[in-house]
Amino acid sequence: MAPPAAIEVEAVTDTSGVTVPDPLTVPVKSNEIYGRRKKADKRQWGVAAPSDSKDFRLRSYEGRPKARRWDHYITHEAKTRKGNSLKQAAKFLSTPGIISLGGGLPSSEYFPFEELSLKVPTVGHFSEAETKDSGVVLTAGKHDLANDKSIFDISTAFNYGQGAGAAQLLRWITEHTELVHDPPYEDWRCTMSIGSTSGLDMALRMLSRPGDMMLSEEYTFSAAVETAAPLGVRLAGVPIDAEGLLPDAMDAILSTWDASARGGRKPHLLYTVPTGQNPTGATQSAARRRAIYAVCQKHDIYIIEDEPYYFLQMQPYTGPNAPDAPPPASHAAFLKSLVPSFLSMDTDGRVMRLDSFSKVISPGSRVGWITASEQLVALYKKHADVSTQNPAGMSQLILWKLLDEHWGHAGYLDWLIYIRLQYTQRRDVILAACEKYLPKAIVSWRPPMAGMFHWMQVDFTRHPDYPQKSIEEIEESVFMRVIEHGALVMRGSWFYANSEERHDTLFFRATYAAAPAEKIDEGIRRFGEAVKEEFRLGKENGVNGYSNGH
Amino acid sequence: MAPPAAIEVEAVTDTSGVTVPDPLTVPVKSNEIYGRRKKADKRQWGVAAPSDSKDFRLRSYEGRPKARRWDHYITHEAKTRKGNSLKQAAKFLSTPGIISLGGGLPSSEYFPFEELSLKVPTVGHFSEAETKDSGVVLTAGKHDLANDKSIFDISTAFNYGQGAGAAQLLRWITEHTELVHDPPYEDWRCTMSIGSTSGLDMALRMLSRPGDMMLSEEYTFSAAVETAAPLGVRLAGVPIDAEGLLPDAMDAILSTWDASARGGRKPHLLYTVPTGQNPTGATQSAARRRAIYAVCQKHDIYIIEDEPYYFLQMQPYTGPNAPDAPPPASHAAFLKSLVPSFLSMDTDGRVMRLDSFSKVISPGSRVGWITASEQLVALYKKHADVSTQNPAGMSQLILWKLLDEHWGHAGYLDWLIYIRLQYTQRRDVILAACEKYLPKAIVSWRPPMAGMFHWMQVDFTRHPDYPQKSIEEIEESVFMRVIEHGALVMRGSWFYANSEERHDTLFFRATYAAAPAEKIDEGIRRFGEAVKEEFRLGKENGVNGYSNGH
Repeated sequence: MAPPAAIEVEAVTDTSGVTVPDPLTVPVKSNEIYGRRKKADKRQWGVAAPSDSKDFRLRSYEGRPKARRWDHYITHEAKTRKGNSLKQAAKFLSTPGIISLGGGLPSSEYFPFEELSLKVPTVGHFSEAETKDSGVVLTAGKHDLANDKSIFDISTAFNYGQGAGAAQLLRWITEHTELVHDPPYEDWRCTMSIGSTSGLDMALRMLSRPGDMMLSEEYTFSAAVETAAPLGVRLAGVPIDAEGLLPDAMDAILSTWDASARGGRKPHLLYTVPTGQNPTGATQSAARRRAIYAVCQKHDIYIIEDEPYYFLQMQPYTGPNAPDAPPPASHAAFLKSLVPSFLSMDTDGRVMRLDSFSKVISPGSRVGWITASEQLVALYKKHADVSTQNPAGMSQLILWKLLDEHWGHAGYLDWLIYIRLQYTQRRDVILAACEKYLPKAIVSWRPPMAGMFHWMQVDFTRHPDYPQKSIEEIEESVFMRVIEHGALVMRGSWFYANSEERHDTLFFRATYAAAPAEKIDEGIRRFGEAVKEEFRLGKENGVNGYSNGH
Repeated sequence: MAPPAAIEVEAVTDTSGVTVPDPLTVPVKSNEIYGRRKKADKRQWGVAAPSDSKDFRLRSYEGRPKARRWDHYITHEAKTRKGNSLKQAAKFLSTPGIISLGGGLPSSEYFPFEELSLKVPTVGHFSEAETKDSGVVLTAGKHDLANDKSIFDISTAFNYGQGAGAAQLLRWITEHTELVHDPPYEDWRCTMSIGSTSGLDMALRMLSRPGDMMLSEEYTFSAAVETAAPLGVRLAGVPIDAEGLLPDAMDAILSTWDASARGGRKPHLLYTVPTGQNPTGATQSAARRRAIYAVCQKHDIYIIEDEPYYFLQMQPYTGPNAPDAPPPASHAAFLKSLVPSFLSMDTDGRVMRLDSFSKVISPGSRVGWITASEQLVALYKKHADVSTQNPAGMSQLILWKLLDEHWGHAGYLDWLIYIRLQYTQRRDVILAACEKYLPKAIVSWRPPMAGMFHWMQVDFTRHPDYPQKSIEEIEESVFMRVIEHGALVMRGSWFYANSEERHDTLFFRATYAAAPAEKIDEGIRRFGEAVKEEFRLGKENGVNGYSNGH
């Protein structure tokens, strides 16, 4: 096992007298957190053993306010759900010496896996090439727990689990959440999700009823619209600027809400992607977030904070010819550079934060987590126990071996810094290509500060068929021409929060996350050619080897 | 890679002229099925590439009837769901040479995994000890697909996917389903689930409305009750005998349904666990299934066939002192020994079958699948795409390496035969212990033919406190005394389909799946002691070191 990055730690004393590293002012070293872990009850490492994220928090939360109760928003479905009664019988398993003929758990004897190994990067040597050369192999045996080799193994992870996920990984997730967000109320909890799309689905079944409307950015993640629609929940778009959601506009919408004109009750939910928003790439500043939170307090709005891109915050954009900004000098500097989350300012417990490993480790893990008040986390867990169950134990074991047993918290922060610099490079590539290839009279953009998306506005009023053709028709026409030119970008209209609302803007979304640099460059070149052709700029249509009809 | 089990194949000619092995009359060899696979479109092996189980079926389904349409049962939620529009944009990716700046998929460059290896048993050497000695190591590299080493790899499996799951594993699942069940209608399809609990949750959201009632065995899987209840769906128990659900009783219930007395509409759904039912262990015979199916046709009932224990069908019980029945002589004999599924007799397409790897490979995979008509599978996929998404790619890769690339279909059947014999031994252990330790005047049982559960009836009328105490009070008293004696069994009342219905039976459920043989024996001994004490049999209360108060 590789040693964690050896950055100096300055421990500080918490109000409770417990010494914990202060994540926002001092560097953090994996082993320091590790060493300070409370003595854990070993029973929770067992098969399908219950655990509670409360027990994994390092700070004292005494004296902090308790979260508000949300009974007035909680659905009949969520209120009447009883959870899995058989899992509740697990409490008798702590009787010393008891022989269980109770739970219908298969014996691990019949899991046809003796060992699982992963080759992964050591801290500081994160690239694919370095991993090939200097990567280490982590191995999970079948009975490592019984053999005292590890606290997590195949026989445990590959069996049934609790909806909250396995204690081993839940501990790491809770510590990470505390380290990064330090929620300012007493009774916050984490529980695993099988990803944030499911997290939103479950949140809506808990907090919304058919006929409800939910606020969001006026352009928003289309899957959120599509998850909500069949539940009878429509989105109401809030105007945005370069920093995303506009608090005054949101306040105005709520203050003047006309249920009959809107065809829905005044919203009590805000769905927002505050950082590197999909599709606009906008990132709300700290001040913006505080202003939005205040509006939510004023109108008693509950916030669903969907944050897959939180750790894809990039280095400042210095422009095409300026030197790069220096990378974060320490873990503390890195954490400090991040925009504070809604969770970190949530004195009321009115935020359900959705976190995901998809963008920073692997979407194929299907492991995420939510952080919210005890009341809502308890409801979420009950629902999970009778629907999604726990995230795949196979994924949990893989993540735990990497994150807890190998990298530790500090190593993970190093990984996140690595990702940050990589995405910065990728973003700079797409911006350079845009500078080079796009006709600025037609296409305009702002450098994204976070996330995977570059959002390009097209001035449809300059289109030769405007105003005979509608915005959506022009969008369709440009889109198809881009395809003809051999590139795929997403149409802005696919991201309308509410397609019944009037839209007078036209955008395309391009991602710099997926393709290699030369493809990004070439893709944008093709996009530029298609736009020029479509808007009859410079060259005549049909020039450059492109004909109209194909 | 180990060679597949070398059992002779006799291929037969399908009505369509395509030569396929007939699973019910001839042995099946892995490579024969493998070799006959249709030439697959390679594009479907790619990241988040769409695929359709239709393309993986080997038989011709021409001339078979089409499934009925279920529009009259499909909910508003399911009808209005549009699916994930961005995933639909994937269709443009097949344009030759296209550069995608479209989908927000992270680059596999940032998946910190270079290689994943698994040590697994070779065919025929399945035990833990043998796997340690002679197991082989399967390895998935990061870019095996690009390097032509394999059709599935880390860069693909660990990225986003389609709700149906990855084509690689979906092919194997479809072939397996065809091999075992050969559904008798034309337009059947498979799609992956994240497990059957979620499958039921999604089926109910597709097919039931608040206020509905759903038929099931009068004792049923408690999580099914708990999944249904918050959706406003109550279960109506149908009387059972040793073969499970009684078709005549079901017909009578439906024919005389009184909505106002029942407090719910006449049911249009049957939830049944036909094989090794949880908790009763009952297995419906083929004739019983046909009779139930006919009742469902008569009353237009849609069937949810939940079959986690299908391959835990055991050898015939020969009694404590008789020699064991010989194991299946061939794959064909094994498949023939299995009770035919509802799916295999489903000429109407009125069955949604829920399959799961939980009991035969590992619950921690959180991978299962459903088989149903194209109409319902399409709705299921759409729902998955905006909620659960695909099962974890990490699990899918692990299962595929084992099932497709290593064992093949024939090797998997050998594994299932191994499991069958193992469960037979375990069942025989619990039955021997019951013969030895239980007071037959009070406790009676039937040998289970399938599954994980032994269902023991207790004659409460012999309890010293009867009739002063209710059945549930006596059950509670026995349960707590069993705990005192150091064993855990499940209370029958936890499995009431409907706790408002009158119950005049008292049962306990014990599992022989989990504990080693000596623990099963000792657990039943403790159960017997507790029952004797509770019913004041033989010894006085307080004898044997047990006192009343603890």
